[in-house]
Amino acid sequence: MQERWVLLIDTEDKKGLIHKISGILVEEGLNVAKNSEYVDKEKNRFFMRSEIEGEVNKEAILAKLHSVLPKAHVELKPSKKKDIVILVTKEAHAIGDMLIKHQFNSLHANIKAVIGNYDVLESLVGKFDIAYHHISHEGISRETHEKKIKEIVRSYAPEYVVLAKYMRILTPEFVKDYENKIINIHHSFLPAFIGANPYKQAFKRGVKIIGATSHFVNNDLDEGPIIYQNVIPVDHSYSWQEMASAGRDVETNVLANALKLVFDDRVFVTGNKTVIL
Amino acid sequence: MQERWVLLIDTEDKKGLIHKISGILVEEGLNVAKNSEYVDKEKNRFFMRSEIEGEVNKEAILAKLHSVLPKAHVELKPSKKKDIVILVTKEAHAIGDMLIKHQFNSLHANIKAVIGNYDVLESLVGKFDIAYHHISHEGISRETHEKKIKEIVRSYAPEYVVLAKYMRILTPEFVKDYENKIINIHHSFLPAFIGANPYKQAFKRGVKIIGATSHFVNNDLDEGPIIYQNVIPVDHSYSWQEMASAGRDVETNVLANALKLVFDDRVFVTGNKTVIL
Amino acid sequence: MQERWVLLIDTEDKKGLIHKISGILVEEGLNVAKNSEYVDKEKNRFFMRSEIEGEVNKEAILAKLHSVLPKAHVELKPSKKKDIVILVTKEAHAIGDMLIKHQFNSLHANIKAVIGNYDVLESLVGKFDIAYHHISHEGISRETHEKKIKEIVRSYAPEYVVLAKYMRILTPEFVKDYENKIINIHHSFLPAFIGANPYKQAFKRGVKIIGATSHFVNNDLDEGPIIYQNVIPVDHSYSWQEMASAGRDVETNVLANALKLVFDDRVFVTGNKTVIL
Amino acid sequence: MQERWVLLIDTEDKKGLIHKISGILVEEGLNVAKNSEYVDKEKNRFFMRSEIEGEVNKEAILAKLHSVLPKAHVELKPSKKKDIVILVTKEAHAIGDMLIKHQFNSLHANIKAVIGNYDVLESLVGKFDIAYHHISHEGISRETHEKKIKEIVRSYAPEYVVLAKYMRILTPEFVKDYENKIINIHHSFLPAFIGANPYKQAFKRGVKIIGATSHFVNNDLDEGPIIYQNVIPVDHSYSWQEMASAGRDVETNVLANALKLVFDDRVFVTGNKTVIL
Repeated sequence: MQERWVLLIDTEDKKGLIHKISGILVEEGLNVAKNSEYVDKEKNRFFMRSEIEGEVNKEAILAKLHSVLPKAHVELKPSKKKDIVILVTKEAHAIGDMLIKHQFNSLHANIKAVIGNYDVLESLVGKFDIAYHHISHEGISRETHEKKIKEIVRSYAPEYVVLAKYMRILTPEFVKDYENKIINIHHSFLPAFIGANPYKQAFKRGVKIIGATSHFVNNDLDEGPIIYQNVIPVDHSYSWQEMASAGRDVETNVLANALKLVFDDRVFVTGNKTVIL
Repeated sequence: MQERWVLLIDTEDKKGLIHKISGILVEEGLNVAKNSEYVDKEKNRFFMRSEIEGEVNKEAILAKLHSVLPKAHVELKPSKKKDIVILVTKEAHAIGDMLIKHQFNSLHANIKAVIGNYDVLESLVGKFDIAYHHISHEGISRETHEKKIKEIVRSYAPEYVVLAKYMRILTPEFVKDYENKIINIHHSFLPAFIGANPYKQAFKRGVKIIGATSHFVNNDLDEGPIIYQNVIPVDHSYSWQEMASAGRDVETNVLANALKLVFDDRVFVTGNKTVIL
Repeated sequence: MQERWVLLIDTEDKKGLIHKISGILVEEGLNVAKNSEYVDKEKNRFFMRSEIEGEVNKEAILAKLHSVLPKAHVELKPSKKKDIVILVTKEAHAIGDMLIKHQFNSLHANIKAVIGNYDVLESLVGKFDIAYHHISHEGISRETHEKKIKEIVRSYAPEYVVLAKYMRILTPEFVKDYENKIINIHHSFLPAFIGANPYKQAFKRGVKIIGATSHFVNNDLDEGPIIYQNVIPVDHSYSWQEMASAGRDVETNVLANALKLVFDDRVFVTGNKTVIL
Repeated sequence: MQERWVLLIDTEDKKGLIHKISGILVEEGLNVAKNSEYVDKEKNRFFMRSEIEGEVNKEAILAKLHSVLPKAHVELKPSKKKDIVILVTKEAHAIGDMLIKHQFNSLHANIKAVIGNYDVLESLVGKFDIAYHHISHEGISRETHEKKIKEIVRSYAPEYVVLAKYMRILTPEFVKDYENKIINIHHSFLPAFIGANPYKQAFKRGVKIIGATSHFVNNDLDEGPIIYQNVIPVDHSYSWQEMASAGRDVETNVLANALKLVFDDRVFVTGNKTVIL
């Protein structure tokens, strides 16, 4: 069976780009199984994602692409499962869904390890024969705590870090090291209810829908590029705890959808937005 | 055919309320066609809505209810179409839907008149033989403008005032005169994107869902009790104008749903929230 | 803390029912925390669900209710987790979600055992220290196979049997023994795509939405009373396998929602429909 | 301002198509503002839609495309409003929405005329200064009736015929004359509830969601290629009339979405399915 590769290009828009790029793939004897482009008129950027089949000579293709698109941001990678590390606190729903999917081969990722600032989820993760590192934040400084986490994360060399209801804020240093590689699930349809306990805020405001948002983490809290969002209806009879409970299923679903998009190499980050092809 | 009445009770919660209230209806020989109750534990309030059939002696029932529930807020009214006045600016979609439904008898309301601060919608409204008052805000003070509108509204003695994309802020005096009787459609899923041009804000933030909110107007801008909300998915390819265009259908739908709930006497206001039975 | 009980009444409709029933609860000194009624005009049936608090004298209440409503179907039970047995075949998603929720106390049920006609899920279930019975259907008759399952089910005396993607049809005898107690998740929005491989059917038909249905099992295949349904959008780019994959999350979500309704004693069955209060 | 054209290609898939086609556009000095492709692996078909800007020499482009893709189905047309004729019976909601949008320039089509087999909607259509032809089916044969309609339709030379709740079945001859040019709104989420009164069927079955489907009409009743579908939740408390009433808003919304896709030249028909780019 032929290998499948994904080609991602993000470059300044100009006439004839598709023709040039597809020409290189034709020269290389490759078949384009799927192709999508998007032009951001406002910023004059061109985005392209191709799934290509055939014997890929990565260096040759990249060299040719760089010669015609010297300033382009280009990625060419085999379509394969991503290595990830997951950070958690106490809540089981988001990571639980990931563990089940991982076990049955539908996560599109290899979970290398899970790190938690509590031990609540240690036994659950252990059931699935995945390493769990309990790094308590108690009695140590924020910096020391994060330094420990960072060392463990780094030791696994993950392609992505997933915050599956990790309830602590990462420092700018950590975020910078994993720019557009940290995926969070936030328990509101951002930008509504930024900050602490969105369900209490939603209850207080008397909204009729609640939601969840998965986004890349950057250094503006709850302001990173949004990957996926979804909502469910609620009504006056929900206490905030019942909203939180109903919200958990949406959070799980939204994170799962976002991860699928990211792990399938479909998500470009451009400024504080995503382009999904 | 028997008349149908709606009984609405909002009172402090205590044991045996349903038994007491239903006892009065039994005494009066009335049939309860539909009945709903809700207890707000936090605020210790009891809400009840009954649709009753039979020969209703309004004074007798109210007297009995007041004697057992002296402090309750009670409404007893025949189930019938509400008289309304609509305020608009330039956009046709929300009022367009109302006019079509009105014409074909599915609005649950009588449109007594439409008032606009532009003449853009005058000819549309005229087609349906409904009075249109063009009260321009140009060249006059906010107070003078609103005074004129108020006089016209008052002359029609409406039970509800509907802001069908009326793009000006009402003064506290106006709002006070029609407490919980003014229904607005806001072009975002509140509390996201409060204030001007929510679609531009949504575009800038890169959200993946946009929505609309219908709420009663109070004196905190965009903070009134929410009646109904809905959303639709969008993606990176939408300009803010395309979001606005897609959003119009949601706005129309959300306002239509909210109006149906209000005109069917199903909405209680309690603090800055609604209870919908 | 006071015990909470649920009272469910399904009876012929007539004037004054609410007053009579609530009178009995008042006499018994009980508090009604939540109350809902519904009248099915077409069939002239009255349904009522009350959550009551206080010291419940079950026999006394039932005796009083039966004396005023001799023909009513009445249930009065403490609000507590239900005992269940789960039947599975090979797919992990629906039972996976249940196992995670069970472990973290949000399933509203005690999983007494899991029975599978394959051993695929044995190790997953074992991780959660729940008994797994592998009862292969191979080489034995349908009757023999089901007899074995029935014996195991019976030995656990479950209140409900959940078919979490159990891909075999139960015999009328089995169904009769657990009338309105067997909950299935069907992989289409019924009544669309009854029968085998709904995703292939959906793909072939070129639908733009797919869905799932949870229903009580009766002896008309895919015709039992529907408890909950939900859908997701798809498009031309989905193969039927991708529809099936996307559909798994909907199935999981739909079953979870249906189980919550059933385990909270909110679902009445009336004919081939449900009334949910 | 530059004209915008849409290029639609539907052809057998093979290597290098994008490169060849984009080469022709580059040669012609045209700019590709939007581009989408889709490959149907199963049927080995390639679909491409390009929005192109610049001075389009239609004959030259078509000639070049035909020389490299002799068997392709190619359309190249200026992006402009489509001429349409609407057929109706008695219900106002679907056509009402179209009339309002038409009046305010957001329908993406010119309504040339409306034909109805009743006169119920004549006065509504007249308000908008659009020709209404009342062609009663009473007292004449199906053939005669349709012949009359056909003559009127033909006289307006429409690009599309919209059945906005036209409750009669068209003959194969009519359908053949307007292959993939007749758009219907069906009041169920097909393939559920094919045939008469879907809302009654839905009520009887006790479903928890109802929906609507817009599709091209072919000669298998309710079996034409689906363009758009949507649903809304319902519950046990809905009579079938209330389902129909709630369903009207979905029907209106679904038809509006389908028309937007078709009028923007985004919909390919392939077999009994659509590909939407």
